[in-house]
Amino acid sequence: MTEKIKQNATYYIDGIAKKDRIIFSKAITIIESTNEHDKLLADEIMQACILNPHRAKRIAISGVPGAGKSTFINAFGKLLVENNHNIAVLAIDPSSSISKGSILGDKTRMDDLVNHEKVFIRPTATGGNLGGIAQKTRETILLCEAFGFDYILVETVGVGQSETLVKNMVDLFVLLLLPNAGDELQGIKRGIMEMADVILINKAEKEHEIAAKTTAAQVKNALHLLAHHENGWLPQVQLISSTEETGLDKTKEIIDSYFLKMETTDFISTNRKNQDLFWFESAILDELQHAFFHNTSIQKIKEELAIKIKNNEINAVHAAKFLVDKFLEN
Amino acid sequence: MTEKIKQNATYYIDGIAKKDRIIFSKAITIIESTNEHDKLLADEIMQACILNPHRAKRIAISGVPGAGKSTFINAFGKLLVENNHNIAVLAIDPSSSISKGSILGDKTRMDDLVNHEKVFIRPTATGGNLGGIAQKTRETILLCEAFGFDYILVETVGVGQSETLVKNMVDLFVLLLLPNAGDELQGIKRGIMEMADVILINKAEKEHEIAAKTTAAQVKNALHLLAHHENGWLPQVQLISSTEETGLDKTKEIIDSYFLKMETTDFISTNRKNQDLFWFESAILDELQHAFFHNTSIQKIKEELAIKIKNNEINAVHAAKFLVDKFLEN
Repeated sequence: MTEKIKQNATYYIDGIAKKDRIIFSKAITIIESTNEHDKLLADEIMQACILNPHRAKRIAISGVPGAGKSTFINAFGKLLVENNHNIAVLAIDPSSSISKGSILGDKTRMDDLVNHEKVFIRPTATGGNLGGIAQKTRETILLCEAFGFDYILVETVGVGQSETLVKNMVDLFVLLLLPNAGDELQGIKRGIMEMADVILINKAEKEHEIAAKTTAAQVKNALHLLAHHENGWLPQVQLISSTEETGLDKTKEIIDSYFLKMETTDFISTNRKNQDLFWFESAILDELQHAFFHNTSIQKIKEELAIKIKNNEINAVHAAKFLVDKFLEN
Repeated sequence: MTEKIKQNATYYIDGIAKKDRIIFSKAITIIESTNEHDKLLADEIMQACILNPHRAKRIAISGVPGAGKSTFINAFGKLLVENNHNIAVLAIDPSSSISKGSILGDKTRMDDLVNHEKVFIRPTATGGNLGGIAQKTRETILLCEAFGFDYILVETVGVGQSETLVKNMVDLFVLLLLPNAGDELQGIKRGIMEMADVILINKAEKEHEIAAKTTAAQVKNALHLLAHHENGWLPQVQLISSTEETGLDKTKEIIDSYFLKMETTDFISTNRKNQDLFWFESAILDELQHAFFHNTSIQKIKEELAIKIKNNEINAVHAAKFLVDKFLEN
């Protein structure tokens, strides 16, 4: 069994090393699978990936719905491929536009990237909780890195729990804002502003120039109130227009200078080690749940307790404590 | 010990029955506490609460940042107290404006409710994961109900995981939209639209009337594409202005007719039973984690594995599996 799995894993590991796109895509499917055999296989593949020395620039693209994340990724991605880089575009949230989860978001805003030979686009893994989905996205990043991509862009919706998750899988966090600071800033959580290394005021076309500049000034003010980044980086604010393709070169310069500095200080390596520990914690919870929900005698007691809860005989938290105690006694 | 706790619990249970605001507030603090003694006490208090026959109207107020949730709660809450109702205002997300978590949201938008004798406002519990915070919000709802509030309004940010959580603690889900459908609808997840029982197009003042009507039409169209509610309720769309206080009476009528129908069909009782089961599942996970992280010998092995992860000797998921197996062997 184990020998067989090792052999199978070799097929994927070799395929990725030979830059075989089809095998690479299949490997991601293995990573995303919940099948027990696939999980063992994924484990072997991932074990090989962590030994890979190639390092991509891992970048999160965040912002509230409507901020223009996909259009930005399209424009910025185009710039990157013109500079001869290979890029992978992933998403962490099933509602992201690249995952086509939104009601009206069915037409792609990544026309210039779809089917481009230097570009790989993969929608979010589905099924399971956000933590589980994120863990798979993180493993997909490691696979993409092993495959040799230069940039890995991870799209995420800028409001909610997914930010902390995505922050823990990238080297650089980009936040997109619209040129209407008042409402926008009120809604953006302090925590998300604090995460951002680069803040782009998007849709800063001629007709929104004043609003965009006002927003930029307000953001700079807000940044002063926030804690400084431990890595010494001062978050940069830049006006851009994804549709008119302005400010993108400057954005690339900012991003390049970030990576130059952070590689010099070894921040990226240290940060990635800490991130691995974060994912260790997350995986522990997944494994605990898995063990619990696959214990049939416990599931039987659980059903009995559920009836008592429905009859208002016992409150949910109390019942849960009783059940977990039983599980750990066995 | 147990006898002592029962005695202490009686103090809170009696205080709540006597509508003592100070004891009631203290009871919420006990619910929110992570102290082991407080947890046992909370358990007793909650056990008494589930026997309480009084039923409040539990309503979620959701919407993206900037949609005007707090201003709506202020205006609608004012209408409710004018109608002689007692209301409690809670929040599930630490970033909500009532929790003052946002950067510029420090000035309250609930001027008419703060310090009103018929109104109780409580910011989100902090600390722990979103699931844990939500569990405490849910228990606070049960306490508020036992205290005798007629309406319990729960504010939540309309993008992210907190929606599923809040949906599972209320009877009715209100979604606030801005009169700029295009961008807005694209960003709103299909899932959140499907949750909504009442959709309010906010900020529909004279100058935004055309945009508001267009949005309403688009929302109605979108609703046709979605699955029908199992309870037979057809989601209603209403234009309102929280600042000019228009459309609020109509909103109250819609909400009242919802409760009338849903109480007749017994949907609310059935729904609450299912919700209790959801919170049972959630509490199980919390208890599992608690047991795991308080096992010292396991925490020691965990530290050793963390070092291996940092040295790239083992991948995080593999290490987690090994550790959980060890935990369950003991």
